[in-house]
Amino acid sequence: MLKEFELASYLRVYQEIVDRELERAVLADPDPGPLYSSMRYSLLAGGKRLRPILCLTVCAAIGGSAEVAMPTAVALEMLHTATLIHDDLPSMDNDDFRRGRPTNHKVFGEGIALLAGDALLAYSLEHVLHNTDAPPDRLLRVIQTLLHAIGVNGAIGGQVADVGLENRPDAELAELESMCARKTGALLVASVVSGAVLAGADEGTIARVSLYGEKIGLAFQIIDDVLDVTSTLDELGKTPHKDEKMRKSTFARLLGLDQARERAADLIESAKREVRSLGEGAVPLFAIADYVGSRSK
Amino acid sequence: MLKEFELASYLRVYQEIVDRELERAVLADPDPGPLYSSMRYSLLAGGKRLRPILCLTVCAAIGGSAEVAMPTAVALEMLHTATLIHDDLPSMDNDDFRRGRPTNHKVFGEGIALLAGDALLAYSLEHVLHNTDAPPDRLLRVIQTLLHAIGVNGAIGGQVADVGLENRPDAELAELESMCARKTGALLVASVVSGAVLAGADEGTIARVSLYGEKIGLAFQIIDDVLDVTSTLDELGKTPHKDEKMRKSTFARLLGLDQARERAADLIESAKREVRSLGEGAVPLFAIADYVGSRSK
Repeated sequence: MLKEFELASYLRVYQEIVDRELERAVLADPDPGPLYSSMRYSLLAGGKRLRPILCLTVCAAIGGSAEVAMPTAVALEMLHTATLIHDDLPSMDNDDFRRGRPTNHKVFGEGIALLAGDALLAYSLEHVLHNTDAPPDRLLRVIQTLLHAIGVNGAIGGQVADVGLENRPDAELAELESMCARKTGALLVASVVSGAVLAGADEGTIARVSLYGEKIGLAFQIIDDVLDVTSTLDELGKTPHKDEKMRKSTFARLLGLDQARERAADLIESAKREVRSLGEGAVPLFAIADYVGSRSK
Repeated sequence: MLKEFELASYLRVYQEIVDRELERAVLADPDPGPLYSSMRYSLLAGGKRLRPILCLTVCAAIGGSAEVAMPTAVALEMLHTATLIHDDLPSMDNDDFRRGRPTNHKVFGEGIALLAGDALLAYSLEHVLHNTDAPPDRLLRVIQTLLHAIGVNGAIGGQVADVGLENRPDAELAELESMCARKTGALLVASVVSGAVLAGADEGTIARVSLYGEKIGLAFQIIDDVLDVTSTLDELGKTPHKDEKMRKSTFARLLGLDQARERAADLIESAKREVRSLGEGAVPLFAIADYVGSRSK
């Protein structure tokens, strides 16, 4: 119980740090118009800040400083927010709520929401290079990692695959896993890998934290599917029961709720084994994995 | 007359090279779905390839190789295409035609067009880093240059400003120029600057080619406004008379057609003076500037 409590304060402290850095990052920009307001609206709407925290935690676990990882950590949240704004648009998932508030296009209109997503995408990558003394080759690898994570083989390709699963309640499990690996997994993998790269990790360590990211990413999506079935709008902060309405294949549907939860738990244990070799530094990564496996929103 | 003819063949040869590289770049991707088809549709629809050609030409003028500039040249066209796909969407300019064909969303639907733009944006930056032996610090500067050119202070911010000019036929000339500098100018500036950076140019040279890019960029937009008034759909390849319908401030409206043409001509001459110090290497840059100033589509 004590350990659970420590994680909660660990996450809270990091969330506050990341929120402050995000606030500073978008304050620094001189453009005062609707684009800027729209970017801030979605970026500063709270959220778990899981991707920045993973990046910072992995970097620290391998002996890197928070300073070296912070610009990339902030960039990961910007990138994540960019994909959320676009995914919520009427021509995509057509969602009205996100993080307990009206979605970006509901407030700023579709045109501005579209451009705010584009701008956050571009700005996130610029931010990786802000105020950093990390070596150029590591920064280039981080940029490549992030770009891969959102591209055709990452979040964007995953979103296309996800839309392709609508009205196909009988898709294969393997197809669903491949979609999730891209839509959700790729950016979580990029979060831990970029933290490792910035800390100067060797290739073996990078490969192990990458597997950790893959596994908690898949568990994350399985829990998402379960919560979509079992939660209310208030609990979730976004519209529940979407999957059923869209007649989509989900882990909850293909495996059943109990077996889906069991699969998530197995993935979490497996993820933890991947990072055991990090010793002391793995403790927060264990706790974050447990948190992903047991989250309720 | 002979010189005009030489430029035409220079542009044709470079267009063919760029088209072949673009074809190869999107062939190399293994994803066979609608996203990929949509990216290819807009990317391989022809076009002047002005941005890649400017990048290659500046690099060559400063003594850099075509190999070192080619990945970035191709990336510039991808980036330009990404902004066109998004600008054409119904929630933005709502255009039905582009480069003489139905716009991307007319063929693939709004959702895929949105994601194809996102994917091209991400993929373009990945492509800068493909198969290159350019030094990491130059590559990082190119990435920064490109990101700045599409961000809040570049094409995306310019598009917001452009939409803000609708139904405001009496905007100030300075406001219009500032919008154009971002919407059109920034990526043209990035094209010449990245070519210079990859060739290892000194800061003075980079500043001069940057001014060349700014000036031909503004001239380009002035001519665009003039052509919007004077052309047909067949001549233009996209819907003409849009500005009048949107009651937008344009150079044609604020200056009148004759004075607008004169201003464009002055800018072209001034742009040419900026690069005169490059000697022999400036000859194609002179010709391209003249071409921008006299183009009919």
